[in-house]
Amino acid sequence: MLQGGFWAFNGAMKRLKFTVAYDGAGFSGWQCQPSGVTVQDVIEQALVVRLGGDAVRIHAAGRTDAGVHALGQVFHVDVAEEVGIPTDRWAAALNSTLPASIRVLEVSEVSADFHARYSAVSKTYCYTIARGMVQLPHDAGRVWHLPKAWSVELMAAAVECLAGRHDFSHFCALRGNEPDPLPPDYFVRTIFESRLTQSDEDHVQVWLTGDGFLYKMVRCLVGAAYSVARGKWTLAELQVHLSTPQALPKDPPPVAPPDGLCLMNVRYEAASRQM
Amino acid sequence: MLQGGFWAFNGAMKRLKFTVAYDGAGFSGWQCQPSGVTVQDVIEQALVVRLGGDAVRIHAAGRTDAGVHALGQVFHVDVAEEVGIPTDRWAAALNSTLPASIRVLEVSEVSADFHARYSAVSKTYCYTIARGMVQLPHDAGRVWHLPKAWSVELMAAAVECLAGRHDFSHFCALRGNEPDPLPPDYFVRTIFESRLTQSDEDHVQVWLTGDGFLYKMVRCLVGAAYSVARGKWTLAELQVHLSTPQALPKDPPPVAPPDGLCLMNVRYEAASRQM
Repeated sequence: MLQGGFWAFNGAMKRLKFTVAYDGAGFSGWQCQPSGVTVQDVIEQALVVRLGGDAVRIHAAGRTDAGVHALGQVFHVDVAEEVGIPTDRWAAALNSTLPASIRVLEVSEVSADFHARYSAVSKTYCYTIARGMVQLPHDAGRVWHLPKAWSVELMAAAVECLAGRHDFSHFCALRGNEPDPLPPDYFVRTIFESRLTQSDEDHVQVWLTGDGFLYKMVRCLVGAAYSVARGKWTLAELQVHLSTPQALPKDPPPVAPPDGLCLMNVRYEAASRQM
Repeated sequence: MLQGGFWAFNGAMKRLKFTVAYDGAGFSGWQCQPSGVTVQDVIEQALVVRLGGDAVRIHAAGRTDAGVHALGQVFHVDVAEEVGIPTDRWAAALNSTLPASIRVLEVSEVSADFHARYSAVSKTYCYTIARGMVQLPHDAGRVWHLPKAWSVELMAAAVECLAGRHDFSHFCALRGNEPDPLPPDYFVRTIFESRLTQSDEDHVQVWLTGDGFLYKMVRCLVGAAYSVARGKWTLAELQVHLSTPQALPKDPPPVAPPDGLCLMNVRYEAASRQM
């Protein structure tokens, strides 16, 4: 039966959870859109090759923007029980059809009430910044290159401030399809963990784990941490803008480019994770 | 004056030492050759753009093979004193002409007896191996993907054995232009330091610092370490083949692919380094 352009199987279905990695540089983001090839487009097409039928719809934990990478994006999809691919063969089956820039890392069967987005308990993003005077060839498309003088110590302090439950209305962008009027807690999210690491002399990473992230929120927060690191904002000013959505920021921080951002993993309650 | 196709300036010359990084994936190695674009070709062409004239010849510390990367390759070149580019502006000047896959990191003026190859005291290579079941998109062209079961501990032990002065005749390839008869110490080199590091669960690095490396020597040694790591060779067998060039190896180890190899740096006596 064809419903809304997608096949609805009449037989028994099972829900599969896929964990995937991708190099976002060549894609117009995760989500299908009128122009440009997206990661979702390519995966859905690969599933059609494997499953047959006209179209397949997959549901991701989160939409990553154009140029953003993933090492642990998660999506779910329903497939007919009659499809003859055992769960432990799905990764190899799909990888043989996908381009090398998208790789399935793991596939498991989950219960019918599992939803990649709504069942997620937390997501972890990592943002990489390169500090060397010259951008290395290997870093192209994978870092924010900030060679000018700025303090790693101040950035680490700024990143630590981000943990907690805050109103992030100053640290996100609007997609234009927000509800009107906005619910009172619309911009409130909780960051469980925020820390800065330094993998070598020229590379630092900002790690953020939270219950959810608004549109461009990680990139806005990394931009704000950079404003502190270069002395445009004090730590106190950052804290005011995290706690007082009414106070309009002076010297609005830059939005960090997508290149440095990577969705590292999505966590679920153990119970809903695996059948 | 045109000598052998290259301009010989009659005025005063100065010798410049360039440190460069490149992503080797798109190049047919370092050295100019009849077919394929090499890193040397592209850099020499960029220098011609900056210096004018017909051709420029540069001299590298070592030739890297097709697909091999560098974070600290060194070459020297002689330029006329009259060229109006100050030494500290050369990196930016050349980078504005080079593709992003090749970057000049540092330029300094050196004495006329400095030679990028013959003055080198040591070179350090790093070879990266990925252990995950699936090769990550970001690793394409940059690792040897060895997902099968093998022991990191045994590989680390094998890598430690490599340090010292050895006859590496079983651990290199012939270019075909070797002297005949071969000098007695032709295959003898000294590895000053050899160690294995593990940057995360799925990635290990083999680091080798030595006074010189034969053709494909690092890739042969990494292949031999893998033979130990997967139980094809014992540590004792590796040691025999490092000390007894007469003993022909059974189960010759694989030659590691170029993808995982990176020339990290070249060291010089402090005196010859800078004017």
